[in-house]
Amino acid sequence: MTDSSSPITLADDERYMRLALAEARQAAELGEIPVGAVIVTASGRIVGRGHNLTEALSDVTAHAEMQAVTAAAQTLGGKYLTGCTLYVTLEPCIMCAGAIGWSQLSRIVIGADDPRRGYSSLTVRSPFHPRATVTRGVCAAECLALVQNFFRDRRSEK
Amino acid sequence: MTDSSSPITLADDERYMRLALAEARQAAELGEIPVGAVIVTASGRIVGRGHNLTEALSDVTAHAEMQAVTAAAQTLGGKYLTGCTLYVTLEPCIMCAGAIGWSQLSRIVIGADDPRRGYSSLTVRSPFHPRATVTRGVCAAECLALVQNFFRDRRSEK
Repeated sequence: MTDSSSPITLADDERYMRLALAEARQAAELGEIPVGAVIVTASGRIVGRGHNLTEALSDVTAHAEMQAVTAAAQTLGGKYLTGCTLYVTLEPCIMCAGAIGWSQLSRIVIGADDPRRGYSSLTVRSPFHPRATVTRGVCAAECLALVQNFFRDRRSEK
Repeated sequence: MTDSSSPITLADDERYMRLALAEARQAAELGEIPVGAVIVTASGRIVGRGHNLTEALSDVTAHAEMQAVTAAAQTLGGKYLTGCTLYVTLEPCIMCAGAIGWSQLSRIVIGADDPRRGYSSLTVRSPFHPRATVTRGVCAAECLALVQNFFRDRRSEK
């Protein structure tokens, strides 16, 4: 479902999700679980990017979304990201969903679902801002393949 | 409920919670919602501290627990905090609960409950490591008074 009042088209969503996918590929190249995120203002300006760096930084909090939220707040000079959209290649975990809620992001666009670790399976109600909208399944096959290939390659290395 | 196999006594818990309270007071002095956290190894070494800095850093992710988790991982040289205990003055939100789960912290000691924003009211099952134990209500009155006084003072300033 997409907020019908939004001027952003599916083509725009796919374009920004491809930038998030490019972030995810940077994570993969570093041996990190490949998840990427991009935050865009209502006028289409990219204000935050991030890719998973939990191994490189030895820090479980260094998920793609967390870094994108922090980066966007620094870029915009304020901690609230009202009016902005987050594009993320994999459904956020509850840590990231909590940060997205606190930041008051207005729209969350998700690539692939994460039935095991995604916030949907662990929360009793939406953790996002009450007026935030969620769009799922943008470039889903590509986002999922990236993660699946990463784990397949890792298993075959053992 | 406290894990009966733990050699840590209630007096130890109160001692560490008072250090978390001292962190929370530092937040209050900066005009931040007063929440503090301390992470302690099984042998009683303090490896991480943090207090809420969301306003100072313009960053919704700068909760006390997040900073303590990151600090402890840097101190110990690895992202997993197995065997460690987190002392936090207020029940963690889902963002922090997610980080605590990812970090594999073994024990979570909570001061005051947070019925509105705490993870308990938003999650369908424990977000922590399956073997983690949770102790609630340590120095609860003191932890709660700190937060309540902060909001009372803020209302009276308006």
